[in-house]
Amino acid sequence: MGVTVIGTPYSNGLDLKLAELLNAERVEAFFKRFPDGEAYVRLDEGVVRGRVVVVVHTMYPDQDRRFVEALLLAEAAKGAGASRVVVVAPYLAYARQDKRFLPGEPISVKAVLASLAMAGADVLVTVDVHKPEELAWFHGVAINVYPARLYGEVVKKLCKSLSDLIVMAPDKGALWRAKAVASSIGVSYDYLEKVRDRVTGEVSYKPKTVDVEGKDVVLVDDMITTGGTIARAARILYEQGAKNIYALCSHAILLDGALQRIKEAGVREVIGTDTVKAPPGVKVVSVAQPIADVLRRLLELLGVGYGAST
Amino acid sequence: MGVTVIGTPYSNGLDLKLAELLNAERVEAFFKRFPDGEAYVRLDEGVVRGRVVVVVHTMYPDQDRRFVEALLLAEAAKGAGASRVVVVAPYLAYARQDKRFLPGEPISVKAVLASLAMAGADVLVTVDVHKPEELAWFHGVAINVYPARLYGEVVKKLCKSLSDLIVMAPDKGALWRAKAVASSIGVSYDYLEKVRDRVTGEVSYKPKTVDVEGKDVVLVDDMITTGGTIARAARILYEQGAKNIYALCSHAILLDGALQRIKEAGVREVIGTDTVKAPPGVKVVSVAQPIADVLRRLLELLGVGYGAST
Repeated sequence: MGVTVIGTPYSNGLDLKLAELLNAERVEAFFKRFPDGEAYVRLDEGVVRGRVVVVVHTMYPDQDRRFVEALLLAEAAKGAGASRVVVVAPYLAYARQDKRFLPGEPISVKAVLASLAMAGADVLVTVDVHKPEELAWFHGVAINVYPARLYGEVVKKLCKSLSDLIVMAPDKGALWRAKAVASSIGVSYDYLEKVRDRVTGEVSYKPKTVDVEGKDVVLVDDMITTGGTIARAARILYEQGAKNIYALCSHAILLDGALQRIKEAGVREVIGTDTVKAPPGVKVVSVAQPIADVLRRLLELLGVGYGAST
Repeated sequence: MGVTVIGTPYSNGLDLKLAELLNAERVEAFFKRFPDGEAYVRLDEGVVRGRVVVVVHTMYPDQDRRFVEALLLAEAAKGAGASRVVVVAPYLAYARQDKRFLPGEPISVKAVLASLAMAGADVLVTVDVHKPEELAWFHGVAINVYPARLYGEVVKKLCKSLSDLIVMAPDKGALWRAKAVASSIGVSYDYLEKVRDRVTGEVSYKPKTVDVEGKDVVLVDDMITTGGTIARAARILYEQGAKNIYALCSHAILLDGALQRIKEAGVREVIGTDTVKAPPGVKVVSVAQPIADVLRRLLELLGVGYGAST
C-alpha cells in the first residue's frame, strides 16, 4: 500500500510541496468542463487502486464549483479502488455557516461535509477551519491543521522585541488562535470584544481594557474577506496606543478593496498562506509543512509505507 | 400536516403552477450570494415546521451552483422541522455521468444524489432523467416523471395524419421514450442505431432499415444540448425519405448554435418543456400537470390533506 498525491488546477501548488515533503508519487487529475457547464474529472486508475490517495484541492474561489469537483474527485478515487481517500481541502467552503444564526437557515457546512464523506472521502484535512468543532459533521476522520508554531515563527520575524509584543484576536471566538500562536513563542495575547448587530450587520467594540500602549500588535484570524473586522480592530488598537499593527490570517481571501481598507487603517503588513491564492501585496507563507506533518502521522497510523522506505 | 411549495429564483415558474394545481400554500425562499461567492438561502420557518415541504428548484444553468443551493434548501427545510422534504428538481444536474465510461471517472450523479439525500431530501422528483435506473443512487424515494401522455398530445397536434406518423428515438437507449409517447396515442415507433466513438466522440449511424418513406417523424430524446445528435438523425431520416421531421425533448438546453444546427438539418419544429428555460425559437409545453399528478399521489400516500379539503 503506497501513497499517491493527486494535484488539481486548484491545488495552489500544495500538491507539489506535499508530494516532495512526503516523498510520495504525485499525478495530476484530468479536469475539464463540458459545454453545458458540468465538471468532468478523471484519475489515472493505475496510481489509485489499492493506494492511499491524497487529493489536494482547495475550495476558493468559486466555492460551489470547487466543492462539486471535490465530490467528483472523492467519488472517482473511491470508485477506482483507492484503499483510503484523503481529501486535503486547505480552504473549506461554507465553513462560516456553521449554525442556524436565524431560523430557517441551513447549516451549510453540514451539507458540504456530509456530502464529501458520502462521496467517498474517508479523511478530510483542512487548515484553520472557522470553528474546529464543525468538522464533526464529517462522517469520517476530519483533521483541522492549525499551524500555530509556523505562525509563531512568522510573528517572531515581524517584531524585533518580543517583550513589547501582543498577539490579539479580533473577537473572543478567535481567542484560541491568538493563544496558540502566542504560546508557541511565549508572548502575551488578548482579544477585542466584537459585538455584531444581527440586523444591521454593524460591528462595534465594547471598551474592553487592553494594554497595548507602545506595543506591537499582531492580529490573528482565520480569514480576511472584506477587511472590515481587521481595519476596525486596528483603528481601536491604535487609539489605545498600539505602536505597530500587523495582520496574520490563514485564508487571505481579501475581496476587492479589502487590502486597501486594511492598509488605510494603518496595518503595516498582511500575512496569509497558500491555502488560497492571495492577492498581490500579501506576504505569503506556506502551510505545506504543517499539513505534511499531519499526513505523515496519519499514514503512520494507517501503517502505510512512504518515502524512501517504500 | 399541510403542504408548502417553496419557490426559488430557479423554479422556472413551476412553483406557481404546482401550488395552483395542488391548491397549496406557496412561499419564496430568500436567496443571496455573499461577496465571496457563497450561496445563502433562508426559509420562513413558520410555513415549514411540521409540514410537507416541496422545494421546486431546477439545476440548469450553472449546475454546480444550483446543486449546492438545492443541498442548502434541503438542509434548511429539514432543520426548520419539515415533516417531509420533497425536492422537485425538474432538471437533474450531472445525470449523464451515470457510470464509469472510462476507468478513473466518477459516477457524478451518484455523488449528487447521495448528497441530496444526506442533506435532508426525503423524496426527489425529477423529470425525464437520462437513465431512470440511476435514481437508485438516491437513498430515499426518487420519482422520475416521464410525461408520455402529455408528449403524445403534443405529437398529435404536430402531425395531421397519425397513420403516416412515426415516433423515433435517436438511439436505442432512448427507445423506451419513443415507445411510451407513441403508445399513448397508438402510433408506431422505432430507433436509429447510434454508434459513438469513445475516443473521437464521432457519432455514426449504421444503416438500419427504418421505414420512414413519406412519413412524418417526431424525434424524441431526454435533452438536446449541442443539437448534433438530432441534426445527424434528421439528415439520415430525410435521406431515407421522411417527409417532415420534428424534435421533442424534455430539456431544451440548446447551447449556442444548437437550434440553428437543428433547423439547418431541416427539423420543422423543436419542442421543449419548462424544466429549463428554453431559448427563443423553441415551442414550450409545461410539465406542471404531470409533476402535480405525481405529487398528488405522493401526498395521498403520506396521508397529507391539501387543497380544498384541508
